[in-house]
Amino acid sequence: MLQFAQFGAGRIGAIHAANLAASGRAALRHIVDVHAPSAAALAAKHGATVSDTATALADPAVGAVIIASSTDTHADLVIAAAEAGKAIFCEKPIDLSLPRVDACLAAVAKAGVPMLVGFNRRFDPNFAELHRRIGAGAIGAVEQVVITSRDPGPPPVSYIKVSGGLFRDMTIHDFDMARWMLGEEPVEVFATGAVLVDKAIGEAGDIDSAMIILKTASGRMAHINNSRRAAYGYDQRVEVHGSAGRLIAGNRIGTTVEQADGKHVATDLPLHFFLERYADAYRIELAAFLDAVEKGTPMPVGAEDGRQALVLADAAYRSLTEGRPVKVA
Amino acid sequence: MLQFAQFGAGRIGAIHAANLAASGRAALRHIVDVHAPSAAALAAKHGATVSDTATALADPAVGAVIIASSTDTHADLVIAAAEAGKAIFCEKPIDLSLPRVDACLAAVAKAGVPMLVGFNRRFDPNFAELHRRIGAGAIGAVEQVVITSRDPGPPPVSYIKVSGGLFRDMTIHDFDMARWMLGEEPVEVFATGAVLVDKAIGEAGDIDSAMIILKTASGRMAHINNSRRAAYGYDQRVEVHGSAGRLIAGNRIGTTVEQADGKHVATDLPLHFFLERYADAYRIELAAFLDAVEKGTPMPVGAEDGRQALVLADAAYRSLTEGRPVKVA
Amino acid sequence: MLQFAQFGAGRIGAIHAANLAASGRAALRHIVDVHAPSAAALAAKHGATVSDTATALADPAVGAVIIASSTDTHADLVIAAAEAGKAIFCEKPIDLSLPRVDACLAAVAKAGVPMLVGFNRRFDPNFAELHRRIGAGAIGAVEQVVITSRDPGPPPVSYIKVSGGLFRDMTIHDFDMARWMLGEEPVEVFATGAVLVDKAIGEAGDIDSAMIILKTASGRMAHINNSRRAAYGYDQRVEVHGSAGRLIAGNRIGTTVEQADGKHVATDLPLHFFLERYADAYRIELAAFLDAVEKGTPMPVGAEDGRQALVLADAAYRSLTEGRPVKVA
Amino acid sequence: MLQFAQFGAGRIGAIHAANLAASGRAALRHIVDVHAPSAAALAAKHGATVSDTATALADPAVGAVIIASSTDTHADLVIAAAEAGKAIFCEKPIDLSLPRVDACLAAVAKAGVPMLVGFNRRFDPNFAELHRRIGAGAIGAVEQVVITSRDPGPPPVSYIKVSGGLFRDMTIHDFDMARWMLGEEPVEVFATGAVLVDKAIGEAGDIDSAMIILKTASGRMAHINNSRRAAYGYDQRVEVHGSAGRLIAGNRIGTTVEQADGKHVATDLPLHFFLERYADAYRIELAAFLDAVEKGTPMPVGAEDGRQALVLADAAYRSLTEGRPVKVA
Repeated sequence: MLQFAQFGAGRIGAIHAANLAASGRAALRHIVDVHAPSAAALAAKHGATVSDTATALADPAVGAVIIASSTDTHADLVIAAAEAGKAIFCEKPIDLSLPRVDACLAAVAKAGVPMLVGFNRRFDPNFAELHRRIGAGAIGAVEQVVITSRDPGPPPVSYIKVSGGLFRDMTIHDFDMARWMLGEEPVEVFATGAVLVDKAIGEAGDIDSAMIILKTASGRMAHINNSRRAAYGYDQRVEVHGSAGRLIAGNRIGTTVEQADGKHVATDLPLHFFLERYADAYRIELAAFLDAVEKGTPMPVGAEDGRQALVLADAAYRSLTEGRPVKVA
Repeated sequence: MLQFAQFGAGRIGAIHAANLAASGRAALRHIVDVHAPSAAALAAKHGATVSDTATALADPAVGAVIIASSTDTHADLVIAAAEAGKAIFCEKPIDLSLPRVDACLAAVAKAGVPMLVGFNRRFDPNFAELHRRIGAGAIGAVEQVVITSRDPGPPPVSYIKVSGGLFRDMTIHDFDMARWMLGEEPVEVFATGAVLVDKAIGEAGDIDSAMIILKTASGRMAHINNSRRAAYGYDQRVEVHGSAGRLIAGNRIGTTVEQADGKHVATDLPLHFFLERYADAYRIELAAFLDAVEKGTPMPVGAEDGRQALVLADAAYRSLTEGRPVKVA
Repeated sequence: MLQFAQFGAGRIGAIHAANLAASGRAALRHIVDVHAPSAAALAAKHGATVSDTATALADPAVGAVIIASSTDTHADLVIAAAEAGKAIFCEKPIDLSLPRVDACLAAVAKAGVPMLVGFNRRFDPNFAELHRRIGAGAIGAVEQVVITSRDPGPPPVSYIKVSGGLFRDMTIHDFDMARWMLGEEPVEVFATGAVLVDKAIGEAGDIDSAMIILKTASGRMAHINNSRRAAYGYDQRVEVHGSAGRLIAGNRIGTTVEQADGKHVATDLPLHFFLERYADAYRIELAAFLDAVEKGTPMPVGAEDGRQALVLADAAYRSLTEGRPVKVA
Repeated sequence: MLQFAQFGAGRIGAIHAANLAASGRAALRHIVDVHAPSAAALAAKHGATVSDTATALADPAVGAVIIASSTDTHADLVIAAAEAGKAIFCEKPIDLSLPRVDACLAAVAKAGVPMLVGFNRRFDPNFAELHRRIGAGAIGAVEQVVITSRDPGPPPVSYIKVSGGLFRDMTIHDFDMARWMLGEEPVEVFATGAVLVDKAIGEAGDIDSAMIILKTASGRMAHINNSRRAAYGYDQRVEVHGSAGRLIAGNRIGTTVEQADGKHVATDLPLHFFLERYADAYRIELAAFLDAVEKGTPMPVGAEDGRQALVLADAAYRSLTEGRPVKVA
């Protein structure tokens, strides 16, 4: 049974630890977190030991790591884990700086360890089924992709300040989804945005609303629209137009109850946030990681995917700043 | 942590055992099944011991039992478990004979043990939310209920022969649902049916298609339609009309993917059968049992509910046989 | 161009007159109504003459009549029109008394004139398409039909008193729809009902809520549920289950606008009443009548259909009164 | 009763003439078309006279004109009609050249005649209701608009060549819709496109697929996606996100029939093209023109709206050609 060291005992770390325990295929051996009480609580819950980074990585019984700590620690941990020969499950983004990401990729390549980057949406059963049907030819050749990605509400401004900004923090998922659905690399990015939700976000140097167009060499196009606020909950939809039809993956709702009364016919709101909407995705993502490690098969979403999404986010920032479309190598 | 003895290691037993293990609140101590390999496999999976009935019930560490064995064994097990002072989780039906059910109720009452009857659909989040809204006054006073309940395909004829017939085997869930949604006891049952799916079912003395109307003393009405076959999967819907509106709980589907092509706009089929559709319901049902045992609160669906659904099923058979509506005490 | 005499200048008469004018294929020559101002207004609108019955039927230029007057006048007008050799478009019901209906059928048969009975729902594009697909084999052999038919609100009690009661006034449409969808004559009717909406309806000797089951010789079944009140508007749905699938025709809504806000995702209410919901149906119904008269082809819904629906309504009343299922010849 | 001269007896002219006849509020007096048989047929159908332009405009009985001839004739007709003092209903676009449009606006202003430009989608009941709710505050302040506008199939290349190109021919409707929904003038346009549907369109110097982003001074954004082909029919949707919610107006379908079988649950395709989808819109549009002329109230969509949509289309072409966002005065 594969033994894990996990870095990060916060909200997302708790999800991965629970999925790991429920998998019946792996065990959590070390928990590392700068916040001692969180580490202790999560370790206790899953029968793990609270450790420091060096101890956890030096343990020869550990075959894999989950990196779910704060973004600024990811790169150092990836490099150290790679050097220690561990399989790596790293939350997105690998880092906010492309040179640092490249250093990670180099370390991973040198060590020859497998690495999965946590683009959880690829494992959402709805988006995965949509993607499967594209591959099965259900709508012919892909022509245009429309991605709607809107959070129920903005994070604290303190988080905004260290987030890397909207494109690297939130849109990075949509860049990955666009690449995956387009089936071809974007070569041009046009991004525009504004502060429409909260002036404090603007004062922190970021935007809270954006619209983006990506274009590939053969002329395929993708549109992304983002907002840090959606009064009705988490809005996560993908629409793909092809030469022979259209595929849409919509939001998930809590129940199928429909109420008709004197005013309207109403159904439930979308599941409120990523913890609910992507609960299945996180579980399936970890299982896919375990599958690939156990069988020695390629990771379904790897370090290069993490890099490429950051390249698009960086290009989007240049586009926003310079007011023009930006070419991507 | 509550210790369980479980009777039955088949398909439904495996579900309860897995939910019990995943709950983190209870442990499986004994598995009893006439089929030794099934008992051994399930016991091994969950760290339990293969026992016989007497041993399991004599174990003072055991606080509760799950009865998921074949229907003809339920009543003896309920009575024995009650006499042993164990809390009882019993799959539906308690028994196919009303006098036997009454003997069970008497034993449970005498022993003062809590008992839940496995009408899992009450715990389906969709139906539960619909029922909650009735209670919250969303549609005023309930007037009519329409229940659609259709299986994807018929069971083997060998099962049909020992099933107690359509009304006691399949419709019994719908009778419970009708009682729950009506909020008032039916006093009259009219049932009609036919063999439209498979002649072998008719040759075995049963029907495979039915329509039923229930009526309460105040004039509320419920309709149930059943079939042993639905080409598109498991069809499980409830519709309630009240003085101020209408509530519908529909089927659950696998994904939200919608495909538009040259022929139509198509969505997924309903989840195919009860194992998928009611996976959440089984988990929540067991949690509700644990809650009630731990807190000493009343069971959300008890022995009397199991009895009353059988009374309606029996009345439906008399109605079908005699070709007239039948009064229910 | 076919010339019409129309009896009745009320709400439904105005619809037929307008559809006739808009058809461009026929002209309104005489309007007859006991309420002189209504007759004058409608005649003026469409360039017709206000006449009495004898004059209108004696006019050799008149080839067809529309009978849209009060129910108690239908039978005499049908007989007189038949004797005058006119093609007959008669609103439902032909009459509330079966012997009177038989007298009409005899007169029509003797005269050899074509006659359409106004079961407008057969011409609703949604129900017509559902029926067409049954015929095309989309769901295999029909097994069960579920008809939901609920009015937005009850008519005045004064109307209830002369209406012939719920089954002859409102359900008669559903009996016709059930026959049409079943594809086989019902041989048994069970009906039950109650006064749940308005006590004054009960004091007038009628019910306002009903549930019905029809059964054919081969075992096909149909359920109808009725109410004189639906808080959310006119609820008119048909669901047909067959050996290979299910067809549903739902309500029509005013616009496709969907609103998501902090509370729910809401769509429009169903079109509020029959004038809106069946506007297309009335237009298509008249066109079908004109087609059949012009081409000499059989009427799509004829006098015998009008009779058979009344037979079912009468059987439903006996069932309700006697508390048992009633056989139908 | 207002008397009309109509220029153009083709497909769209026939629609306007039929709506005018059915309105009961206006009469068609002159039909002018270079194709004599079309003019004769339409004139005969509606009791009008075939005339030449000079005769039609010199007729003092004529109070209004409908300009539904080929695009290259619009501007001359607008100017002549204005000088003749007629109220003007002009199909979009006024002209493909902005200076010519400005000449029209000057003539109209000088003559003081009312003018409606045929942006029929503003009168579609779905989009109109969505817009009404924005005004009623249903979703707070508008932030982002997403417009999907895809034709079922491309027009002949011969038409493409004289169409003014995708943005002036097809997207011009979407530019108007975006302006209307944003509630604020766009100040920047970014457009990109490709030839993905038919190489012959590219050889004719046009594109067949496009994505556009518009931005207003306060930071509101709109996205438009276009294709000349949609395998499933005419795809016309508008989605508006505001500070308090989201509104979507979807496609209209032919019937509400839903078919579930062994493969999927399928509903009808969208209405196939603009003649079906916008039948109501054309009727309501003409009624709105008549209302404004009769009451002397402002036109709901006027000459300035026609000009502004062309300004955006021109900017989109510059953006496409120059590969950068373009400012709009």
